[in-house]
Amino acid sequence: MNLHRICCCLIFSLVPFSAPLADEGMWQPHQIETLGPQLSDTGLEIEPSQLTDPSSYPLNAVVSLGGYSASFVSPKGLVVTNHHCVYRSVQVNSTPERNLLEEGFLAAELAQELPAAPGTRVYVTEAVTDVTGRILSGVTDTMGGLERYKTIETNRKAVIKRCEQTGMHRCQVTSFHHGLSYYLIKRLEIRDVRLVHVPPASIGKYGGDIDNWQWPRHTGDFGFYRAYVGADGKPADYHESNVPYSSPNFLKLAAQGVREGDFVMAAGYPGSTNRYRTASEIAHQFTWFYPRARQYREELIATIEAASAPESQARLNYASTVASLANYAKNYQSMEESFAHSDLLARRQQQEQAFQQWVAGDAERADTREAIAQFDKLVREGQAHAARDLWLGYFDYAQLPDTAMALYRLAVEKQKPDAEREPGYQERDMDRFRQSLQRMTNTYDPTVDQSVLAYLLQRYRQLDDAQRLASIDAFFDLGKTVSRAHVSQALVSREKRQRQLAKLYRQSELSEESVRLAWMEKSVEDFRNSKDPMIRFAVETFDERMAIETAAKERAGRRQHWRPRYMAGWIAWRQSLNQPVYADANSTLRITYGQVLGNQPRDGLRNTPFTRLEGILEKDSGVAPFNAPAEQLALIRQQEYGGLALPAIDSVPVNFLSTLDITGGNSGTAVLNGRGELVGLLFDGVYESIIGDWDFNDEKNRAISVDARYMLWVMTYLGEADNLLVEMSLGVKESAGEGQSGE
Amino acid sequence: MNLHRICCCLIFSLVPFSAPLADEGMWQPHQIETLGPQLSDTGLEIEPSQLTDPSSYPLNAVVSLGGYSASFVSPKGLVVTNHHCVYRSVQVNSTPERNLLEEGFLAAELAQELPAAPGTRVYVTEAVTDVTGRILSGVTDTMGGLERYKTIETNRKAVIKRCEQTGMHRCQVTSFHHGLSYYLIKRLEIRDVRLVHVPPASIGKYGGDIDNWQWPRHTGDFGFYRAYVGADGKPADYHESNVPYSSPNFLKLAAQGVREGDFVMAAGYPGSTNRYRTASEIAHQFTWFYPRARQYREELIATIEAASAPESQARLNYASTVASLANYAKNYQSMEESFAHSDLLARRQQQEQAFQQWVAGDAERADTREAIAQFDKLVREGQAHAARDLWLGYFDYAQLPDTAMALYRLAVEKQKPDAEREPGYQERDMDRFRQSLQRMTNTYDPTVDQSVLAYLLQRYRQLDDAQRLASIDAFFDLGKTVSRAHVSQALVSREKRQRQLAKLYRQSELSEESVRLAWMEKSVEDFRNSKDPMIRFAVETFDERMAIETAAKERAGRRQHWRPRYMAGWIAWRQSLNQPVYADANSTLRITYGQVLGNQPRDGLRNTPFTRLEGILEKDSGVAPFNAPAEQLALIRQQEYGGLALPAIDSVPVNFLSTLDITGGNSGTAVLNGRGELVGLLFDGVYESIIGDWDFNDEKNRAISVDARYMLWVMTYLGEADNLLVEMSLGVKESAGEGQSGE
Repeated sequence: MNLHRICCCLIFSLVPFSAPLADEGMWQPHQIETLGPQLSDTGLEIEPSQLTDPSSYPLNAVVSLGGYSASFVSPKGLVVTNHHCVYRSVQVNSTPERNLLEEGFLAAELAQELPAAPGTRVYVTEAVTDVTGRILSGVTDTMGGLERYKTIETNRKAVIKRCEQTGMHRCQVTSFHHGLSYYLIKRLEIRDVRLVHVPPASIGKYGGDIDNWQWPRHTGDFGFYRAYVGADGKPADYHESNVPYSSPNFLKLAAQGVREGDFVMAAGYPGSTNRYRTASEIAHQFTWFYPRARQYREELIATIEAASAPESQARLNYASTVASLANYAKNYQSMEESFAHSDLLARRQQQEQAFQQWVAGDAERADTREAIAQFDKLVREGQAHAARDLWLGYFDYAQLPDTAMALYRLAVEKQKPDAEREPGYQERDMDRFRQSLQRMTNTYDPTVDQSVLAYLLQRYRQLDDAQRLASIDAFFDLGKTVSRAHVSQALVSREKRQRQLAKLYRQSELSEESVRLAWMEKSVEDFRNSKDPMIRFAVETFDERMAIETAAKERAGRRQHWRPRYMAGWIAWRQSLNQPVYADANSTLRITYGQVLGNQPRDGLRNTPFTRLEGILEKDSGVAPFNAPAEQLALIRQQEYGGLALPAIDSVPVNFLSTLDITGGNSGTAVLNGRGELVGLLFDGVYESIIGDWDFNDEKNRAISVDARYMLWVMTYLGEADNLLVEMSLGVKESAGEGQSGE
Repeated sequence: MNLHRICCCLIFSLVPFSAPLADEGMWQPHQIETLGPQLSDTGLEIEPSQLTDPSSYPLNAVVSLGGYSASFVSPKGLVVTNHHCVYRSVQVNSTPERNLLEEGFLAAELAQELPAAPGTRVYVTEAVTDVTGRILSGVTDTMGGLERYKTIETNRKAVIKRCEQTGMHRCQVTSFHHGLSYYLIKRLEIRDVRLVHVPPASIGKYGGDIDNWQWPRHTGDFGFYRAYVGADGKPADYHESNVPYSSPNFLKLAAQGVREGDFVMAAGYPGSTNRYRTASEIAHQFTWFYPRARQYREELIATIEAASAPESQARLNYASTVASLANYAKNYQSMEESFAHSDLLARRQQQEQAFQQWVAGDAERADTREAIAQFDKLVREGQAHAARDLWLGYFDYAQLPDTAMALYRLAVEKQKPDAEREPGYQERDMDRFRQSLQRMTNTYDPTVDQSVLAYLLQRYRQLDDAQRLASIDAFFDLGKTVSRAHVSQALVSREKRQRQLAKLYRQSELSEESVRLAWMEKSVEDFRNSKDPMIRFAVETFDERMAIETAAKERAGRRQHWRPRYMAGWIAWRQSLNQPVYADANSTLRITYGQVLGNQPRDGLRNTPFTRLEGILEKDSGVAPFNAPAEQLALIRQQEYGGLALPAIDSVPVNFLSTLDITGGNSGTAVLNGRGELVGLLFDGVYESIIGDWDFNDEKNRAISVDARYMLWVMTYLGEADNLLVEMSLGVKESAGEGQSGE
């Protein structure tokens, strides 16, 4: 199997365009050293060593927006990313008179650039340091789970604190291979970010939710920010006197683009994958978690929509909540469907058997044998309270009680020295904490929230007695699980419950932003004396919720002992088979490489690697999300390609498919050609990629990018963004079509 | 444009696999003489002249089932066609104890073969004769429309009568190019047809309505009949002593099948196309007719379903009616969608301009100029009563009044000599007439029919006054068009109307099969004296309906003068441009040729030409229509290909795409390779082909066939149909995989 794989790679390197490379892998930059020869063989033209250092070109042109990826494309802090990554900034700058979402936006000069949405950041990774020793300092094999968890947390916080002493950086300590090693990521945190340019949503969000996770795709999913710093060059809050950040480096757009089969690579910040889960975890996730979580999401959407009139302010406030609920409901459903047609579980079971045989074959691997058994035990232990934990997870959607809980937690945490507080409640987190209390004003409605809480309590009553919390039962005066015999009684009590909840919302003052903010400063004593019913709920359920959290931390501490050992064994086994080993995605900078290539989504059907401008004419119905600007349709009908056409498709490519291994968080990532030039921006995956977080399939997984040529075409013909084209050294209309050579 | 086309053909003949041939055309056999060289160049291996005579091989192996196509595949009258063409015969032979639809059926020997559904026929075309002279005998340029219509009808009936004097033949006179020429088709009518073999619906109807008009497809859409004749070799009614018909010839299955790009051809009975409609007709059809007809269909379905409980006998009785309503509602919707994305109308307008310029350029074409003007006038005249005519068309769905109308018409027609009666009411039609009265017992329910009539009357009330029939207004006591001001009054009268209709159905005895049959023998006098309210309806509205019919015939008579002249001009123009000219499909034997080839349904997507066995695993959900037999799934998992695999797809091909130009009526048509061997059966088209009846597009149109290799695979591994494989000279399991050479 594995020799076969290596053999295939050799063959593929001779015929790179006819069959996919084995493109699985989100590599840490330092791993490129080992992979270098293969990259060079398959199309990398720069030195592989150039990709190993995050602080030099091209990686130092790659930035994170926190949850999204982006890149500098000029020396003056100009940042390119996806339209959907700047969406909120376009939204907050829109007014009824000037709807930037609909019209698009271009700042013709610096002075016209608009402040991005509150909380928008550009993070420039400056250093990645292995801090495993420091994080595990004081950790022993014999210590209890809770002690281990706390030791690691304390070490982690200390390392972060030291790193952030500059006052300019946001640092994080991230575990790789689930605790096998820890890296400190030091990122310059740029706080003044401004909106520079974005096409209208009818281009940037073309196809909308209907086309989400779909191919063929025709989305102009790009937009520009600019990073600003103080006159001293250091990050600063927004101020008129701030100046564009001098980017340490920047990517060059390659107007000549890519062809089918071309080598491509991407450096970005993938969020999270699950490529090393056990068969037991996989079975639980796909057959237990996804169906139930999807039900929560679908029912929450129905609840929100039933409680708010279409186009009402309440419905508007919940638009992004509903979108996010729906997005993942669709994602989970696709996960279930993909799983039903996949042999993932059977293959993982076979792998585990092979792993265990390999372990059993060598007496020196007794430790690994023990780790496998202990880890498996821990997985099952964690699944025992899955129904309760799922409910607690979705309880966040009841915003008023959730806010009360967070505020009380803050008061409790503030009793401790900053270093000992729970992450999220430290001084470094207070800006974010405050912003989230403020943001709630626009994402909350008391009537809807009350319905959501009623729904969640109804789901709560369906939990087994063993999964329930005595303090919640007591607060809401809930009996034990409703038996069928008591259905009529339940119907009677439903009305009573609604009156009870209505009273709760009437009496709580937390719906007021000023009240919420004021509670940030209050003491535990103040909370205990409060009569606000939401505060009372937070106080009265606190101890029991904390006990659950502590038990989870204790389990986590034991997992921190066993899972790294399990992973070390797994990695050793994989390496013995010459198989690639990369860590699960964890929001750190990763490099993936592959080629421009279509796929076969189903028997009898092929996704071809490029879509054409003419595909927009084909899709366009005039009704959103298929309502391209009339001017664009006319230009396409006139075949106005501006020298940006790809001969093989006889048109300007709009989006393209590649074998790049990506996941959420990669949105906005620059796709680079072999010379390190920007040829597109990743923004989505095909339907078959949805399960890719668990199981990368060379034949099926495909990333979708907006083609750089389409970006240039839109900017040239529709955006009139000549100033940006000049800034990116791409000249104006006349020369847009000329190929650009590398750095 | 046209020189370009010829040029392209030359190029394509050099690179036949890389681009589609211009495959438009449903050719009459005699036209193959001219096309011969091109066919030979593109892959025809037999002499083209072999395809010009319907009475010699291979065309004499091709038969019609009346609305479907089929072929003899053994010397003993064994006929292969689609599963959906034998569906009704499987249905009528099914019992609750032995559900042949679910189980499939194989007669292991002749004695086990089951009588096909009543009315099933095998038609063997014996001669095709140009009878234009005889049909137009007595027709003058100066005669009135009605007179011309009647002269042609009288001639037509005389020619048919003479042809049918054998007592064994069913003859038809069919107009080509809409009256430019007439051909007499003499067909042996075999009346004893028996069901031989059919796979279970979970194979033969795999994908069901969901996959209808879709690709990728995995349908085993095949089944076998056998034609029986009397001991004297002549057609006879079903009798135990009948013997298998000695087929004049038969096709051989080619187990080696076809590959991508291979030449294929097909001979079958396409029903009807509209390739020569004027822009005005096209605009009317797509923007007026289809949307309104679809609304009728959707509302009729809703009406039927609202009036019958799911799984009730009533609902079962309407199953095929609903299926047919839905099928064409979907078809019409697709027509509208395709039209919206098509430049058909604009292109036709351009063509008409070019045609008119060509006509204007030559004084000798003054007749054509006149024909264009007159024909256009007639088209507009016909559209004037479109709303009324559409309503009258859908009035058939009210079965009880429709039956009363047909019965009364019969009594009226029977007053005339047989030769003068309206087609459908002649002696030759009486068997069919009786069968349809009998069939109604299984397709009718009085409650549903009453709801359908109520719905149709409601639609009737929405007609403009000018479109309404005074006799219908009078019979149902309907006021004139309901204005908005009278809505409340309409609501009141709705209840009254329902009571009125209920009474009608209570008092009519036509719901009884015996009563209906008895009315076949009654006189006009009997009808006039009847108190049966449905009979009364037929009698009281008769004169007005006949007046409408007569006016239509008068218009038809004028069209019979002008349309042939219009077509002659059009053909002359097309020929002046070296463009192919073939007649619209008209249920006569036609030959189409092309190649095995995928298409691009949308930008970014390609349909590949073959589907694989493994695609069934991919689609299968265990729930109908995606519920392949467990045994089949197991065989596929074991990759049990039996030597029938196509190397290029590494599996047994299930269905394939080709550029063959087909339409409804082609179902069951044998697809032949260059040697005239059967390589598949046509059964559907891709979504993009739906508009193909109006506008064949080389790039988009694709026919879907079940691959002969899949038929053999199913018959071998699942059907155990060794007896048929032997009969078709294909041997048993061991040799199923060996390629068969030609005749």
